[in-house]
Amino acid sequence: MCADKINPIRPTDDEARALARSLLEGARFAALAVTDATTGTPMVTRIALGTDARGTPLSLVSTLSQHTTALAKDPNCALLVGEPGDKGDPLTHPRLSIQARAEIVARDDPRHAPLADRYLADHPKARLYADFGDFRYVLFTPTRALLNGGFGKAFELTPDDLAK
Amino acid sequence: MCADKINPIRPTDDEARALARSLLEGARFAALAVTDATTGTPMVTRIALGTDARGTPLSLVSTLSQHTTALAKDPNCALLVGEPGDKGDPLTHPRLSIQARAEIVARDDPRHAPLADRYLADHPKARLYADFGDFRYVLFTPTRALLNGGFGKAFELTPDDLAK
Repeated sequence: MCADKINPIRPTDDEARALARSLLEGARFAALAVTDATTGTPMVTRIALGTDARGTPLSLVSTLSQHTTALAKDPNCALLVGEPGDKGDPLTHPRLSIQARAEIVARDDPRHAPLADRYLADHPKARLYADFGDFRYVLFTPTRALLNGGFGKAFELTPDDLAK
Repeated sequence: MCADKINPIRPTDDEARALARSLLEGARFAALAVTDATTGTPMVTRIALGTDARGTPLSLVSTLSQHTTALAKDPNCALLVGEPGDKGDPLTHPRLSIQARAEIVARDDPRHAPLADRYLADHPKARLYADFGDFRYVLFTPTRALLNGGFGKAFELTPDDLAK
């Protein structure tokens, strides 16, 4: 067998779209990749994750954190969702890599309150810090995504493929 | 309580160094952030992870994958290790964000065989594909790291803090 001859990207079908949406809707947290504002090179951190009413990825972040500073300078970013279990080869577990643009929502933006209601219903422990002055909701609008359902099962997805 | 007045970075101590090393040595996989060779923006994917004899993060990747194409163009990258459990606030679980430079090791490099021996002892299921012609070992030499041990417990680490 010669893997060099395999095209790793399959045509996107409804099963792939459904898997991608279930990975996103089921995620309680994500890895967030940004361009570090100091070094100009990649940085990856963990954030808690929810979605807004339209299924757009949503988080609550501190403006004191390096990733928020990075997003304020360059909103291009990426999210990884889909967690392996404790057993077996972690690369056989499906995961979704989303490239996105981040929008930090001001506290006086009319979207702040409805986003807070939705996010805190999903993440009740975040009520402990959600009202601290340095916290903001961030919306991540997908630009493209790569679904990896295991070896040889990769799909390139559009924002429409991910939308509800 | 006003979080704006808290400096979120604590002085690095031996406890922080030990936690960082245990997160890295204990990781079976990581989130890898790269700069996408096509878009020039962040991308984040999952890779399996081991370490070499000196504790340097190590993976086995396909040259067919987008992250390997990205690393070949720009070796600046980042890794996230330390997985939350299924319960509680995922942001209270410790995790380590490592910024690094990747080196793709050629198959005829004298380091290939010893890296393969070590990696495949830790990841025996990777023997299924390790000998495919498109797979390469990659070493990630840390340049800096951020350890987040939970709210208010962040530490900036140097490569020496992470070394064995």
